[in-house]
Amino acid sequence: VNEFDLIQRYFSQLTDNRVDTVAGIGDDCALLRPDVNRLLAVSTDTLVSGRHFPADTDPKSLGFKCLAVNLSDLAAMGAEPAWVSLSLTLPEQDEAWLTSFAAGFGELARHYQLQLVGGDLTRGPLSITVTIHGQVQADRVMRRNGASVGDLVCVSGNLGDAALALHEMRHGEVADIMLQQALDRPQPMVGLGIELATYASSCIDISDGLVADLGHICDASQCQAQIQLELLPCSEPVLQHIAQSGSWAVAVSGGDDYQLCFTIPPQHRDKLAKISESSGIAIAVIGEIKAGQGVFCFDRDHQLVKLKASGYKHF
Amino acid sequence: VNEFDLIQRYFSQLTDNRVDTVAGIGDDCALLRPDVNRLLAVSTDTLVSGRHFPADTDPKSLGFKCLAVNLSDLAAMGAEPAWVSLSLTLPEQDEAWLTSFAAGFGELARHYQLQLVGGDLTRGPLSITVTIHGQVQADRVMRRNGASVGDLVCVSGNLGDAALALHEMRHGEVADIMLQQALDRPQPMVGLGIELATYASSCIDISDGLVADLGHICDASQCQAQIQLELLPCSEPVLQHIAQSGSWAVAVSGGDDYQLCFTIPPQHRDKLAKISESSGIAIAVIGEIKAGQGVFCFDRDHQLVKLKASGYKHF
Repeated sequence: VNEFDLIQRYFSQLTDNRVDTVAGIGDDCALLRPDVNRLLAVSTDTLVSGRHFPADTDPKSLGFKCLAVNLSDLAAMGAEPAWVSLSLTLPEQDEAWLTSFAAGFGELARHYQLQLVGGDLTRGPLSITVTIHGQVQADRVMRRNGASVGDLVCVSGNLGDAALALHEMRHGEVADIMLQQALDRPQPMVGLGIELATYASSCIDISDGLVADLGHICDASQCQAQIQLELLPCSEPVLQHIAQSGSWAVAVSGGDDYQLCFTIPPQHRDKLAKISESSGIAIAVIGEIKAGQGVFCFDRDHQLVKLKASGYKHF
Repeated sequence: VNEFDLIQRYFSQLTDNRVDTVAGIGDDCALLRPDVNRLLAVSTDTLVSGRHFPADTDPKSLGFKCLAVNLSDLAAMGAEPAWVSLSLTLPEQDEAWLTSFAAGFGELARHYQLQLVGGDLTRGPLSITVTIHGQVQADRVMRRNGASVGDLVCVSGNLGDAALALHEMRHGEVADIMLQQALDRPQPMVGLGIELATYASSCIDISDGLVADLGHICDASQCQAQIQLELLPCSEPVLQHIAQSGSWAVAVSGGDDYQLCFTIPPQHRDKLAKISESSGIAIAVIGEIKAGQGVFCFDRDHQLVKLKASGYKHF
């Protein structure tokens, strides 16, 4: 059994489902025919066991999440998903593990009509590298460097659910299934990203935490963001945790949210309700872009709140 | 220091060198503008420490080789290199190691005007995943499935040097620097692949060994290959080893050659000398495609020689 056979066996529904794929798995390279009217958007992420996830993580969740975090990068640029490569390093060939992993990966891949066009199955310490390809019109792509003074700062969905789940896991069990779902099965904001692309001036997905990721927009756009903490969209459990702990950390620096943080010129404010309705995703205006640099958070008394900006750093 | 800064620091010469890159490292995705008249060829390979290379491998050789093996996949399809992503998982941030790795990787990347457009630096057991993108005209691409009865079977360069080096390493030291170079710094046949693309009916790069890889061509093309062992191109040390051991294994199933094995219709035989001259790469005709299946090797007395086909299998 060679690795192509293994990939075909576990991922068979994902290897032959796009007309713009000239050759998929099974030759030295995949051959793709990108849309001549769009740019190709490419992103790579590696997840390492014991670092990005516990070694005993449910493989179905892992398959789902390793693809979700890459789709989230496409979403942040307003790109439509197309092709994906999967490099899987496993300690041993475990049929049940692979079947379960493929089920989680496949669920999301099929939903977005992604084709698996490259792969590598290697023996070694558990680690997953996904490279994703999407397509986006050059005049609609959202970059990090487009924010301007006066733009509104917005986020999709809720912040802090995944970080609170992780916090609760470390202190026992996660009480709320919704929190566990947010951690295990983040929903990439692909459809929202495509709709936002017409109006947003900049965008990023929140993987390291709101303050850290919004900071990347500010750095790239050479501007400052001012955030009103009471405007942050949070679930009831997260609001309770913030009230009890007296800290906003879970919502602003916890990370793993995979929501979109974007800026939009104030004249497009009235588009937000329509975009929210058509995408089915809540959008909250949480602050404004100012001249300067950095991200500043204010409480309801307009007092500056000092917060650690940094998300997880590998080195 | 975030990972983009690290990548910029070590790979700075590789991140801003192509006009068809709209956005490189530093946003959620890279944005590429593929040539509208060509197909995009994509390949991924993972190298794991202790499995694909010893943990103490010289990082400069490792940087060179992890890119060379991916370039070799592009070469096998006749594609021209364009963009590359590098996911590097390292036990610790080791400045000297990274500098040396980047030197080996960069040497080859610059030679082929590759741009590094994506990256991930993660802490964990040493492992490297490279995803490479090249471009090739649809009517010139070499696939595995194009061989026909009567085609000549050819290989570039010499076979067995890397396998003999590995064999000698396991039994002491590698006496010949040429063998060590073949193992540590395989030269991808990119230029040759592009030139062959006009004439060859099928092609593959030899990573698992001639018989295993030619077997993939036979499977995909539904044909048989018959090889004359005395026609195999081998260096003096490999010929000596074959004579002493009485086995052709090092040349036909050792693997790690990264030479091209291709088939060419007999009417194009006269093109081989010219292609060899212009690319500077020796080409040997080693056999012929017949009806049937599988790869059969014959000695100078026309006797069938039984050989293990399989190269290295991970599972």
